[in-house]
Amino acid sequence: MTSHAGGLSTNEGVVDLNADVGESFGRWQLGDDGALLPHLTSANVACGFHAGDPLTLRHTCTMAVSAGVTIGAQVGYRDLAGFGRRYIDVPAAELTADVLYQLGALDAIARAAGGRVAYLKPHGALYHAVSRHPGQAEAVVDAVRAFGGLPVLGLAGSVFLDAVAAAGLEAVGEGFADRAYLPDGGLVPRTERGAVLTDPVAVAAQAVELARAGDVRSVCIHGDSPGAPGLAAAVRAGLDEAGIPVGAFA
Amino acid sequence: MTSHAGGLSTNEGVVDLNADVGESFGRWQLGDDGALLPHLTSANVACGFHAGDPLTLRHTCTMAVSAGVTIGAQVGYRDLAGFGRRYIDVPAAELTADVLYQLGALDAIARAAGGRVAYLKPHGALYHAVSRHPGQAEAVVDAVRAFGGLPVLGLAGSVFLDAVAAAGLEAVGEGFADRAYLPDGGLVPRTERGAVLTDPVAVAAQAVELARAGDVRSVCIHGDSPGAPGLAAAVRAGLDEAGIPVGAFA
Amino acid sequence: MTSHAGGLSTNEGVVDLNADVGESFGRWQLGDDGALLPHLTSANVACGFHAGDPLTLRHTCTMAVSAGVTIGAQVGYRDLAGFGRRYIDVPAAELTADVLYQLGALDAIARAAGGRVAYLKPHGALYHAVSRHPGQAEAVVDAVRAFGGLPVLGLAGSVFLDAVAAAGLEAVGEGFADRAYLPDGGLVPRTERGAVLTDPVAVAAQAVELARAGDVRSVCIHGDSPGAPGLAAAVRAGLDEAGIPVGAFA
Amino acid sequence: MTSHAGGLSTNEGVVDLNADVGESFGRWQLGDDGALLPHLTSANVACGFHAGDPLTLRHTCTMAVSAGVTIGAQVGYRDLAGFGRRYIDVPAAELTADVLYQLGALDAIARAAGGRVAYLKPHGALYHAVSRHPGQAEAVVDAVRAFGGLPVLGLAGSVFLDAVAAAGLEAVGEGFADRAYLPDGGLVPRTERGAVLTDPVAVAAQAVELARAGDVRSVCIHGDSPGAPGLAAAVRAGLDEAGIPVGAFA
Repeated sequence: MTSHAGGLSTNEGVVDLNADVGESFGRWQLGDDGALLPHLTSANVACGFHAGDPLTLRHTCTMAVSAGVTIGAQVGYRDLAGFGRRYIDVPAAELTADVLYQLGALDAIARAAGGRVAYLKPHGALYHAVSRHPGQAEAVVDAVRAFGGLPVLGLAGSVFLDAVAAAGLEAVGEGFADRAYLPDGGLVPRTERGAVLTDPVAVAAQAVELARAGDVRSVCIHGDSPGAPGLAAAVRAGLDEAGIPVGAFA
Repeated sequence: MTSHAGGLSTNEGVVDLNADVGESFGRWQLGDDGALLPHLTSANVACGFHAGDPLTLRHTCTMAVSAGVTIGAQVGYRDLAGFGRRYIDVPAAELTADVLYQLGALDAIARAAGGRVAYLKPHGALYHAVSRHPGQAEAVVDAVRAFGGLPVLGLAGSVFLDAVAAAGLEAVGEGFADRAYLPDGGLVPRTERGAVLTDPVAVAAQAVELARAGDVRSVCIHGDSPGAPGLAAAVRAGLDEAGIPVGAFA
Repeated sequence: MTSHAGGLSTNEGVVDLNADVGESFGRWQLGDDGALLPHLTSANVACGFHAGDPLTLRHTCTMAVSAGVTIGAQVGYRDLAGFGRRYIDVPAAELTADVLYQLGALDAIARAAGGRVAYLKPHGALYHAVSRHPGQAEAVVDAVRAFGGLPVLGLAGSVFLDAVAAAGLEAVGEGFADRAYLPDGGLVPRTERGAVLTDPVAVAAQAVELARAGDVRSVCIHGDSPGAPGLAAAVRAGLDEAGIPVGAFA
Repeated sequence: MTSHAGGLSTNEGVVDLNADVGESFGRWQLGDDGALLPHLTSANVACGFHAGDPLTLRHTCTMAVSAGVTIGAQVGYRDLAGFGRRYIDVPAAELTADVLYQLGALDAIARAAGGRVAYLKPHGALYHAVSRHPGQAEAVVDAVRAFGGLPVLGLAGSVFLDAVAAAGLEAVGEGFADRAYLPDGGLVPRTERGAVLTDPVAVAAQAVELARAGDVRSVCIHGDSPGAPGLAAAVRAGLDEAGIPVGAFA
C-alpha cells in the first residue's frame, strides 16, 4: 500500500501475524495465550466489554510485552453473554464512547506492563458491522481519532478500512489463514462444511498465499480453538520457509 | 499537611470543593451535573464500574472542561446493582487491575474532552474499605502507581491516606460539608437522625469550619441529592464570605 | 373467548389500561410507580434484563397486588446499558431461553407478593423486533408456550400477535394514548415534532377513540415520564366519562 | 421426615451424590456436564447470577431430566466477574429478592424441561457466608419460604442448616469427597498442600467414610475440574461396593 492518504505501509513485503488473546473472563478460561503469543507479531487483546476481565488483560499484556508482541485493542459491543458476536444497534455517539472507553482502559493496562495500545481491531459482530455499515464504521473511526489516532486492522477491502483511510489513519487489511474463501473473495459462511481450515499444512499454505497476494498486510489466526498455538507455529514456519519476513505492522 | 513524604500541599490555605458527578447510567439519570459543576473545583467522575456509562462520562468531562473544573476518577467496585455501596471482598491483584482499568478508561475520555484525570477518589464501599483495611488500601495505591502516579483524595486521617503518602503520592484529606460529625471526628451514621445536613446555612458553616481546621484540603458535597447544586452554591458563597480562597488541589 | 382461534376477548367492550412499572435499578429511580399504579388495570413489570432489580420487582409486585392491578412480564433484551431499546440480533434459542428465564423470575416474585404473572408484553427494541420479524416473534411465543401459556399483549395488527394467535395463545392488541398516529395507523416517529402527546385532554380523548375503534383491547400509557400518573388519571377519567368500562384483560 | 423439627431424612441410610453443573456462560465452557450428570443423583444448576446463561440452563436441565437426576438451584451473589466466590455485603432484603429471583428463573426453565427445582444450595462465597453469618442465612431462608418451601442443602452442622430447620424446612447436610478435612471437622484451606484430593481411590474412600458417619446425607464432588466425571464415577462405584444405597434426597 503506497498512495492512500494516511494509509502508508512502513514495512513493504513484511507480513504480520495476529490473533485474539485475553478473552478469558474471571473463572472462565479461553484459549492458551501463553502458548500462542510467542508465535504472533500482533496480539488483539480483548478490552472487557465482550471478553477479558482487567486482571486477565494485565496478565496478557505482561506476557505480550515479554514475548515482544505488539498489543492491539480488540474492541467490541458490550455483550459478555454473547461474546460480542451478536449485532447490537448502538447509536453512533454511544458506540464512539464505548470504543474510546475500551481503548483507554486497555492502554493503561498495557502501559503498566511496559507496552501500549498500538492499533485497534474490532471484534465479532462489530467487525462485521463496520465492514458493511458506514454509520458504525464512522463511529469507530471517531473513537480512534478521539484517542489521538492509531493504525486500524480490519477486513481487507471493506468500507471500514475506506473510512479509516479517509480519516487520515493507517488502514491495515487482513486475511484469514484458517478460513476458506469463496471465488469472489468473501469468506465461506461458518455454517457450511469446510468453512474452517484445521489442517496445519493447509492453513500455512493459505497464509503464504495471502502474504504473496499483496493487499493483505496481516494474517489472522483464530485464537480460541485448542489447536491455535499449533496452527500459529505452522503458519510462522510456513512463512519462514517461503522466505516471507514476518513482523508487526505497528 | 506539611512534612509527609510525598504528601506536600502546593496550595496552602486554599480549599477545594469536590462532588460526585457522571453517575447516570443509560436511561437512568442521577444528579443535575450541569447545575452542580459550575460551583465545584474538582469533579469526581464515575468510571463505569458502579455508575456512569461511557457516553455519560464523555458528556460529563466535556461539561467539566468547559466549566474549568478539574477531573478526578471516582473508582469503585464492579457493582452496578449496588451502586458500589456494598463491600466486595476482591483479591488485591484483581482490585488493582480493576482500578487501573477504570483510570485508563476515564482518562481517555477526559483527554478527548480536552482534560485529563488529575486525581483519584474511591467511591462508596471502596472508600470505606480502604479507609480501614490496609490490604485494599495498598491495592488501590498500587493501581495509582501503575498508572504513573496521581494525587489521591480520601478521608482525612485514614490508613488509606497514610498508604498513599508512604508510596510517595500526594495525599489529600477531605471533610464532608453535609454530614454531621461525632465528637471523635467520625461521621454520624446515616441510619441516625440528623446524620445528613440539608440546611444550606448549616452546610456552608460546616464547610468554613472544615476549611479553617487545617487538616482538610478539600470539602465534599454529596452530588446525588436534588438540592446538591443549591448546597454547593451556598458552600461556595460561604467560603467566599469567610475570605477562604477556593481552588482545585490538582 | 368465543370463536377466533386462540385470539379472543373475554371482556367484550371493556378496555384495559397498561403501563410500564418496576423500571428502577438499584440506586437509579425511574417513574413514580406508587402514584401511577392505582390508575392502571395492568402493570407491565420489568424483569431484570433491561431494567428492574429483584428488590424493586418485589416492591412493585407488592404495590400492584395491593392496588388490585394485574401483573404482566415486561420482557426485554439483556441490555441494562441500553434499557432494552437497542436491537440485539439474538439467536432464537437464546431469546426463548432469555424470555423464559425472565418469566420465571418475575412469577416467583409476583407469587411471593400474592399475585402471579398473568400476561407477557415485550419491551423496547424487542417489542419492535417481534412486531416485524417472524423469527424473533416465534422465539418469544415459544417461551410463552414453554412457560405453560399466557395471554400476550402487543401491537395491534402486528405479525407478533398473528404468531401468538397461531400458537393458540390469547393475543391482546394495544394502542398508545400518548403517541400521535399516522394516517396509515403507524406511529409518528419519536424524532418528529408532536410524536408524543403530553396534554392530558388530548391523551384522554385519544384513549377514548382507541377504545371505541374496536381492535384495541388495551390502552398504553408510557410510565417513565414525570407526568405519567396525571396522564393515567386523565385517561381513566376520560374513559369513565365516555361510559367505557375499564378492566384488566387477564 | 420423622421427629426432628423440620430437619429430617426421608431416606435413612441412602446417600445422595451432588455436584455443580450449568456453570458455563455464553462462549465460555466450564465442566463436562454431559459426562458428569449420569453419575449424580442431584445436580446443583447455576442460576445466572454468578454463572449459567439461560440457554445453558435449559440444556443442562434437559440433560438432568434425561438422566433422571434431581435439579437443585445453585444460587449465588450477582457476580459474574468473581464467579460468586467473592463475599458481597448485600443487605438482607436485597439478598432475599435476589435468591427468590434465581429460584423462579431456574424453576421455569426446569419445568419447561419436564423437571422442577427440588432443592436449593448456596454457591461459593454465599455458601460460606450463610454457614457463619445468621443474617445472610436468614435472608436465604426467607427466600426459600417466599418460594413456597424447598429442602436446603448446605454444610453439615452449620448455622445455615440450623436456620433452615428452625424455619420448618428440610435441612440436608453435605460433606466433600474431594477435600481434605481437619481433625476438628473443618476443611483444610485451599491454600494448603493436599487440600484437594484428586486420587479417585482416596476420593471414593472418603465418600464411603462420610456416608457411614451419619450426619451427612449428601456427598459433594466439585464439578468444574477436568477429572470430575472420573471422580464421580469412582465415588459411585465405591459406594456401590460398600453396599451403601445411592439416591436423591429430594
